[in-house]
Amino acid sequence: MSKIRDVAEHAGVSASTVSNVLNGRINRMAHETLERVEAAIAALKYRPSTTARQLKTGHTPMIGLLVPSLANPMYGSIAREIETLAQERHGFRIMIGNTYREKDKETRFFEDLVDHGVRGCIIISSLAEESHFALASARGMVVVSYDRRVTPGDDSSVDHVSVDNHESARIATRHLIDNGHRRLAFVTASGFTMSRQEKIHGFLEAVKKARIASSAEVIAGTPLSEYGDSVMAEVGKLTAADLAARKPAQRPTGIVALNDVMAWGLMSGFREAGLRVPQDVSIVGMDDVYLSALMNPPLSTVHLPVREMAAVIVDRLMRRLADPRIRAAEFIFKPTLVERGSVAPLRARKKT
Amino acid sequence: MSKIRDVAEHAGVSASTVSNVLNGRINRMAHETLERVEAAIAALKYRPSTTARQLKTGHTPMIGLLVPSLANPMYGSIAREIETLAQERHGFRIMIGNTYREKDKETRFFEDLVDHGVRGCIIISSLAEESHFALASARGMVVVSYDRRVTPGDDSSVDHVSVDNHESARIATRHLIDNGHRRLAFVTASGFTMSRQEKIHGFLEAVKKARIASSAEVIAGTPLSEYGDSVMAEVGKLTAADLAARKPAQRPTGIVALNDVMAWGLMSGFREAGLRVPQDVSIVGMDDVYLSALMNPPLSTVHLPVREMAAVIVDRLMRRLADPRIRAAEFIFKPTLVERGSVAPLRARKKT
Repeated sequence: MSKIRDVAEHAGVSASTVSNVLNGRINRMAHETLERVEAAIAALKYRPSTTARQLKTGHTPMIGLLVPSLANPMYGSIAREIETLAQERHGFRIMIGNTYREKDKETRFFEDLVDHGVRGCIIISSLAEESHFALASARGMVVVSYDRRVTPGDDSSVDHVSVDNHESARIATRHLIDNGHRRLAFVTASGFTMSRQEKIHGFLEAVKKARIASSAEVIAGTPLSEYGDSVMAEVGKLTAADLAARKPAQRPTGIVALNDVMAWGLMSGFREAGLRVPQDVSIVGMDDVYLSALMNPPLSTVHLPVREMAAVIVDRLMRRLADPRIRAAEFIFKPTLVERGSVAPLRARKKT
Repeated sequence: MSKIRDVAEHAGVSASTVSNVLNGRINRMAHETLERVEAAIAALKYRPSTTARQLKTGHTPMIGLLVPSLANPMYGSIAREIETLAQERHGFRIMIGNTYREKDKETRFFEDLVDHGVRGCIIISSLAEESHFALASARGMVVVSYDRRVTPGDDSSVDHVSVDNHESARIATRHLIDNGHRRLAFVTASGFTMSRQEKIHGFLEAVKKARIASSAEVIAGTPLSEYGDSVMAEVGKLTAADLAARKPAQRPTGIVALNDVMAWGLMSGFREAGLRVPQDVSIVGMDDVYLSALMNPPLSTVHLPVREMAAVIVDRLMRRLADPRIRAAEFIFKPTLVERGSVAPLRARKKT
């Protein structure tokens, strides 16, 4: 790597002259000298060190991005979008980490961000407990949280950008009810996160309003491991096998899945057990990952405006990094139902 | 963020005493002083600055990771694995970037790595042209390339870790031939990468050896955009629509897809056109992304030992960062065929 003194030697000037050029102190410099230094910078492909810049400004053009697991294509999609926006619009790079929903990993990531001179972080689908965020905020970290709302009563040092998860589950459930389904299940994974809780509430509100709460259930499947690629899909597959083993009269005819990957697992599990989607069981996902449109049958799901949310996430982080006086806020986006092929009216089911 | 002088003040000692503790120079220190400093470090949650460490050692505990797009779950899976290994085994963080297969983006990423004091980089599924890697290597960057072999004649400053792509395509093609298929197509995306070329060669070798080269074709679909989530899947869908529009006698009965995501797109496209997989068209993917087992029908594909390859990638990078005298090398892994439900014998097709 070229250093200032290499540039100086190449240009035949002193290191302090090169430093003057790099810092824009060129008003008293001979034009010929400036040209020689610039040519040397170009020839040696010299770039000012971020480390030196960082010591001066106290931070580095990098932000942190924490996701539960990059193997979930929903998180892959939003990470792709965030990285591209941060890089192309703001020249910031991304330090990424998988948390596997463990508080220790989240905490250690914050510590390493500080160590690396990073002052901004985006955290996706975090745990219910947010005290370690507040600690990071108190140490000067700007934090934007995606996929959950502000905890009532908490201070607002963290931005929250999210779809209305309660509403997502509500409209997914409503869609099944509108199609005549009365025995419903919401399938989630064990482990408590704020967005999961919001979705469960949305489901319960919809079934209560339709007066079918007594035939509705919340099923929390236990992941075999949080570390692998296929955690959510496995929970879906195992839950489908359990449900398929029930007597038909005790089996839900309509299922809302925590997310699309779990819905794919459910579809696969029912198929392996000899049940047809949607003729025997109707399924609605949540997220609208692009792959859901390719499934067989194509998955009916709830669409999240990922691109718009990613833009707000990156924009908020950059604004608050530039001006610490800006107060944190909450940005809630509206989900929309996408009807495809995984839901059938209950009547059609009985006919077949 | 706490600084050394905050710790010194809290402990009632000088900053140089704190510095001595941090650097292990404690043999002449009073035990009581050491305890006071350690208590202050704990109370203030002080951690030594990476920036300072970096100025001393010249590099930072971070490595770069370049992928074409995190929205492809294959890249999400390997990125998850690499990040977890680098973090848990070596305490290194990951700076990540999406390249969308553009040389400019790859080059700029290398420059930013240097700027951030990063000296090691993993690059996944790179372009055919590798000269910008050599430049980065020459500037002191340790580079490990995944998903391609050494270019014959090139110097070996870059490690190459890859599955044998030629063999992957060869066994996928062979599987179709063994099932009686004679009209075959290899479907790829336009745009030249080394791994794509290796796969095309593997396909062509297999059809040549079976003396069916005259009824085999390579189809390179044009992505509508390289930026979105669904690039590969779209190429698959559009190609399936084109093939379905052909007369049956001119349509391939067996297709090898460049990768699993493209195979999912092909399956979806054929289904929309009224053709059945595998009864009307047999399809083999490549990658064995965990989601392929959930598809309907489950996708027959070629398995890559991702976990083993990720371990070698991270291990090589760490070893060569620690000892620059280690010469770069090539590590080629064997792919294996995974038979599921997307390939049927040609006879069965005719019967239905």
